[in-house]
Amino acid sequence: MLRTHTCGELRLEDLNKIVTLAGWVQRVRNKGGLVWVDLRDRYGITQLIFEEGEADAALLKSAGSLGREFVVQATGTVIERTAKNNKIPTGDIEIKVAELQVLNKAKVPPFIIEDDTDGGEDLRMKYRYLDLRRNTIREKLLLRHRMMQETRKYMDLSDFIEVETPVLIKSTPEGARDFVVPSRVHPGEFYALPQSPQTFKQLLMVSGFDRYFQIVKCFRDEDLRADRQPEFTQIDCEMSFVDQEDILELFEGLIRHLFQSVKGMELDEVVRMTYADAMRLYGNDKPDLRFGMTFVELKELTQGKGFNVFDSAAYVAGICAKGAGEYTRKQLDALTNWVKRPQIGAKGLVYVKCNADGSYKSSVDKFYSQEDLKAWAEKAGAVAGDLLLVLSGDLQSTRKQLSELRLKVGEDLGLRDKTVYKALWVVDFPLLEWDEEMGRYHAMHHPFTSPKPEDLPLLETDPGKVRANAYDLVINGVEIGGGSIRIHDREQQQRMFRHLGFSEEDAQAQFGFLMEAFEFGAPPHGGIAFGFDRLCAIFGGSDSIRDYIAFPKNNAGRDVMINSPSAISGEQLDELSLSVQPKKV
Amino acid sequence: MLRTHTCGELRLEDLNKIVTLAGWVQRVRNKGGLVWVDLRDRYGITQLIFEEGEADAALLKSAGSLGREFVVQATGTVIERTAKNNKIPTGDIEIKVAELQVLNKAKVPPFIIEDDTDGGEDLRMKYRYLDLRRNTIREKLLLRHRMMQETRKYMDLSDFIEVETPVLIKSTPEGARDFVVPSRVHPGEFYALPQSPQTFKQLLMVSGFDRYFQIVKCFRDEDLRADRQPEFTQIDCEMSFVDQEDILELFEGLIRHLFQSVKGMELDEVVRMTYADAMRLYGNDKPDLRFGMTFVELKELTQGKGFNVFDSAAYVAGICAKGAGEYTRKQLDALTNWVKRPQIGAKGLVYVKCNADGSYKSSVDKFYSQEDLKAWAEKAGAVAGDLLLVLSGDLQSTRKQLSELRLKVGEDLGLRDKTVYKALWVVDFPLLEWDEEMGRYHAMHHPFTSPKPEDLPLLETDPGKVRANAYDLVINGVEIGGGSIRIHDREQQQRMFRHLGFSEEDAQAQFGFLMEAFEFGAPPHGGIAFGFDRLCAIFGGSDSIRDYIAFPKNNAGRDVMINSPSAISGEQLDELSLSVQPKKV
Repeated sequence: MLRTHTCGELRLEDLNKIVTLAGWVQRVRNKGGLVWVDLRDRYGITQLIFEEGEADAALLKSAGSLGREFVVQATGTVIERTAKNNKIPTGDIEIKVAELQVLNKAKVPPFIIEDDTDGGEDLRMKYRYLDLRRNTIREKLLLRHRMMQETRKYMDLSDFIEVETPVLIKSTPEGARDFVVPSRVHPGEFYALPQSPQTFKQLLMVSGFDRYFQIVKCFRDEDLRADRQPEFTQIDCEMSFVDQEDILELFEGLIRHLFQSVKGMELDEVVRMTYADAMRLYGNDKPDLRFGMTFVELKELTQGKGFNVFDSAAYVAGICAKGAGEYTRKQLDALTNWVKRPQIGAKGLVYVKCNADGSYKSSVDKFYSQEDLKAWAEKAGAVAGDLLLVLSGDLQSTRKQLSELRLKVGEDLGLRDKTVYKALWVVDFPLLEWDEEMGRYHAMHHPFTSPKPEDLPLLETDPGKVRANAYDLVINGVEIGGGSIRIHDREQQQRMFRHLGFSEEDAQAQFGFLMEAFEFGAPPHGGIAFGFDRLCAIFGGSDSIRDYIAFPKNNAGRDVMINSPSAISGEQLDELSLSVQPKKV
Repeated sequence: MLRTHTCGELRLEDLNKIVTLAGWVQRVRNKGGLVWVDLRDRYGITQLIFEEGEADAALLKSAGSLGREFVVQATGTVIERTAKNNKIPTGDIEIKVAELQVLNKAKVPPFIIEDDTDGGEDLRMKYRYLDLRRNTIREKLLLRHRMMQETRKYMDLSDFIEVETPVLIKSTPEGARDFVVPSRVHPGEFYALPQSPQTFKQLLMVSGFDRYFQIVKCFRDEDLRADRQPEFTQIDCEMSFVDQEDILELFEGLIRHLFQSVKGMELDEVVRMTYADAMRLYGNDKPDLRFGMTFVELKELTQGKGFNVFDSAAYVAGICAKGAGEYTRKQLDALTNWVKRPQIGAKGLVYVKCNADGSYKSSVDKFYSQEDLKAWAEKAGAVAGDLLLVLSGDLQSTRKQLSELRLKVGEDLGLRDKTVYKALWVVDFPLLEWDEEMGRYHAMHHPFTSPKPEDLPLLETDPGKVRANAYDLVINGVEIGGGSIRIHDREQQQRMFRHLGFSEEDAQAQFGFLMEAFEFGAPPHGGIAFGFDRLCAIFGGSDSIRDYIAFPKNNAGRDVMINSPSAISGEQLDELSLSVQPKKV
């Protein structure tokens, strides 16, 4: 090793040791006859000191001429600092340097490599390797490393086998778009990159592997939105001979283990909530349970008083913002404008302030008496000092708008503390979702999800009502995982494909191998997949996943550091029997 | 859970417990009033018994009608077997079944699902999910799982950070062919799948990550040979501030840990051997050290006796096959024919038998006296009962032929015991290799490998003589890993690209980002990568890697189970702005 110790290691106990350190120059302070250098590596910072008289002039000079981010190796004696720095673990000591070697020079970096940087997003992406030098980013990737190790430890102890499924698979144009890989050996044929190892993990259950897991890269060629990556990582799991509850318990255990081992935290009870309740109480299938503010349905209490907006609405509901009764006119106007933005799309916002004197002040005083408003407030559990916010309209969009409003108000009131974690299982998802555009149902989860046996008769009469054995794990309003009990019977799988509008031929061509596998003794099975990038971000208390990925792509799916994607040679195209066509409009 | 216990779990201590098992029917024996069923899962086999009188007739009948590979759930009482089976851990007990439920029927499998199967390679590939049910295959994948967990444990304890590098990167047409992935969003541009995360792991060193590892899928679009896979897995590692010896020690530690933890074995000393010595003594840069039989150079001792073959050869060398002096004429002819096969390509084979009476019998008695032959034998350390086998010709091909012969004879003499493991480091590889076809040098390891500083002057005068800081780990004649100390200086990297025939522009376009990174404070660093599939196969005592991969491709790069690669729709091609062209000849 080019060092005897790391830059995070030396303490008072090491006084008088002759040591060699290697690392990056974080900072140089040159007082003429005295030079201090902060030397940095992954493990910490150690102060080097060069003193006139003891060090020769050349050494002093070369220390003084070190630039930021130079890579150096320094040998010297551990001494006690006169002015200690209690902010860093090595702050009691410094190294009186006798030998200094520059291992590599550095140009001035394009942005400051400290926790707070002056580098913009684009610059930091182009020089990602410099951005990764910052403690804040490295710590995020260290957290990710810890999460991976602890996930595997838990899964291994729970008898899961880690199996690598193939990356070069087959394109199945259901769901999101596949990335494809042209085959040179088989001209005109393509592999596809997996959107998930779904069929392979089910085949492993047919193989009797009983418990499978993998932390695996998956790929989706989507039109990118902020914070979506074309390649992403999931914790992918499958188990045989299980009921839904077995899966929920085992993976609640995983999350609990991760909180304990990675964050030293005990997670509260992970409640189960049906999809129907989540929609009714939070207007959202991934409710943030760090705060209450559940929906209160006010349709009945608001009818027939001449307020046509409510009278004509299919759905009227409100939330009670505790302690927000003092909101000013300006604040209420701002909230109203906020819900009327096209992203939210509400027509307006009705408020009721619960005054200290027991009276009510509302934006619809014209239509409703104090008695009326009192009834609303009572139903909502609103007391003096609280604020009732009410939206109305059709069921689906109003729920969505009110959910957004609830999150916004929760945020404003400081109820969404990033250091607090509330997890829940949302269960009993609908099996099918109506696709307006396509004029048919599609699978809410995926085509391999099993319907609840008791709802099976509805499949022919009212398919939208059929509930699935499907579940999501939600933490702080973010869906971090989801899964289902699968179909393991050929007949039933075929029927499902039919309901999803697959022709017999398409189903056979795409998933024939799976249906055939079901005929050779497939066990009942189910599983789950967690979005690992997002899970890490949640654990790190971040909204963005990008910093938890070592080399992310930008919003255009481009790696600006290596400049990818990029053109390939005509020779390569010829070998692949391909030619590039002008884009069809 | 649909079971209370697994099929490998119950013992005499469990007598009289009411248990529920679930699994696959391995075998049914029906004696009329008595039916036995062997129930199998991943964990073992448990015998179920159905008895007349105690079980009702319907139960007995349904047990008797179970077919192979049916999936069933059975509830009953643990009882002691009258005829115990000491071949399986559950052999002392059986389950007297009271309830039986068929969870899924099974068609008759296309081949027998037992350790010895009647299924041919093609059939087993098509029904890989059934092949995976066989214990022998599942055990190989369990070994792989164990290897992964133990590798990560060792790396984590050694302060390595597991970082996922991107799969969608950039095509660099150096080395093997890349698989490419067309970008839909950027028409005419392509990502490439990584042949290794080489540049990314070097960038992580520039980032100060200090120690990186990953168990990662890599891709090579090669013309497939037996036992090559287009996607393969490597253990990929990189470290900063290290000398070559640091890396060898740390990764010798990894291999030692794997032998201890996975196989319960202590590995012998891992010797270091220079490339030059490996070629001189074994004619091979991955010598099998399970046996000696090192090369003996006989050029000097064989000259001027009228045997033109030896006189005109640049190189004459032999090996001593201990105890093979009794080989018959027929055996020697067979060996001679073996070396003359086109795959080996020797012109002939000279032998010298060391007889019990101290005399010698050789195929060149006409030219050489007993004295001559004695001198050869003495140089080779051959004594009575041994056999000397001699080849001649130009240095390179003769070494290659003699190496093949040594391995063949070692095999024949039973010296290549699969339960014995001998590992070594081959070091000091040449930096460059002359490429006859291209008429230029190419990097023996890769363009990022650093030359030995003391050999640097040779780079301009005799490039083929320059040795690299490169090393391979070899076990039992198989290269399982290799790496190098890297270049970390822009100037030197640029010079290397020049020597490898890169134009300034190409070097910049392909690796500009890396060279630029070197200018911002790159630490000295080096690393290694292990072929994980092969490592698993070696640990499992197999020559073939295929059974250590859950879903391998066949020799044509095709997954015959899912039928991939396959055609994609014209719509997909249009979206990608691509069209398929007839193959150019």
